[in-house]
Amino acid sequence: MTRGKFITLEGGEGAGKSTQVKHLADFLRGAGIDVVLTREVGGSFSAEAIRDLWLTQADGHWDAWTELLLIMAARREHLVKTVFPALDRGAWVISDRFADSTRAYQGIGLGLGVDTVNEVYRLIAKDFEPDLTLLLDLPVEIGFARVTKRCGPDDRYQQKNMDFHQKLREAYLALAQKYAQRFRVVDASRDANAVAAEIEKIVRGHFGLLISS
Amino acid sequence: MTRGKFITLEGGEGAGKSTQVKHLADFLRGAGIDVVLTREVGGSFSAEAIRDLWLTQADGHWDAWTELLLIMAARREHLVKTVFPALDRGAWVISDRFADSTRAYQGIGLGLGVDTVNEVYRLIAKDFEPDLTLLLDLPVEIGFARVTKRCGPDDRYQQKNMDFHQKLREAYLALAQKYAQRFRVVDASRDANAVAAEIEKIVRGHFGLLISS
Repeated sequence: MTRGKFITLEGGEGAGKSTQVKHLADFLRGAGIDVVLTREVGGSFSAEAIRDLWLTQADGHWDAWTELLLIMAARREHLVKTVFPALDRGAWVISDRFADSTRAYQGIGLGLGVDTVNEVYRLIAKDFEPDLTLLLDLPVEIGFARVTKRCGPDDRYQQKNMDFHQKLREAYLALAQKYAQRFRVVDASRDANAVAAEIEKIVRGHFGLLISS
Repeated sequence: MTRGKFITLEGGEGAGKSTQVKHLADFLRGAGIDVVLTREVGGSFSAEAIRDLWLTQADGHWDAWTELLLIMAARREHLVKTVFPALDRGAWVISDRFADSTRAYQGIGLGLGVDTVNEVYRLIAKDFEPDLTLLLDLPVEIGFARVTKRCGPDDRYQQKNMDFHQKLREAYLALAQKYAQRFRVVDASRDANAVAAEIEKIVRGHFGLLISS
């Protein structure tokens, strides 16, 4: 059995990640591929339990290091119980966020350092990385306008301010350069169909998929 | 304000840690010292929340790496929200278990390696270590007999078998040699009063306390 491929979608609020994750799954299924859709923080029963604890914030504010370790603990469960088994049986796994979110948010945004994030990541994942990471990039103002329209905040990320989101956007773009081989930057300010079409094209090119469009 | 001292008690099941922790607190309070009693895994509101999640085991079995990261996340909360503030205001902190438990259980018992545990520990605590660690050592059979007498298991540690507990005892003794400067091994097979008396003597000698016995 050929091992499946691991594709991650990254990007700030309002970039359309969840929409594009579904589009991409449909596209791959149309090519006869067994697809597992998942997300982080979470993605397995046990990882979602850690996510729930993380989001409650217990006494109101996790220390940044605690947050890093909780997220990595959830990631380990996600990998061991969802991602690795799916890849092993030949399925392709698409994850809405993965380790690059931690590199961007905790590593750069909160200042723990990408090297530190990688140090902990290597403990739980060795040299495992996505085969392809799609960065849905768009100006912070557009992302915010979309999120506001979609209605009230249900995500702690949204509570941070514009400066922080600008910093995150730059962090993601820096990661896309650092890990250029697996990263592709997609202009997510366009309408969803245009973005989906570009993603199909990228995926076809990256994996040599022969699918008529 | 002189920074307080940090004393940890370690040892297997039935060694009498919780009894001795209270004895030691009374002894130090008798010497006019402000004492904070705490425990791991847990020791702050937020760390106890992580402990609760850890003990539920979510889907029935945490991966060993997940467990390590959850314990270290709880430790970070414990340090930042309980231990460091107490030491800073001059209080002495006595903790029922601390990082040596992780070195023994996850590092040696579960085979992740003491170096690995130390790598994560250094991220959250830098070079902070207890000023004194009391290892309550006793033969595994005696510890088990005490625990059984005390009635039913309420601790996941107790579910492990005798071989594992023997391995843990040896792990703790190896740690006591590795960190000989801060470790003192106490024969915990004796009755509680004899153990308490030896601990008082050790603490008096270690910190130069002038207290009449």
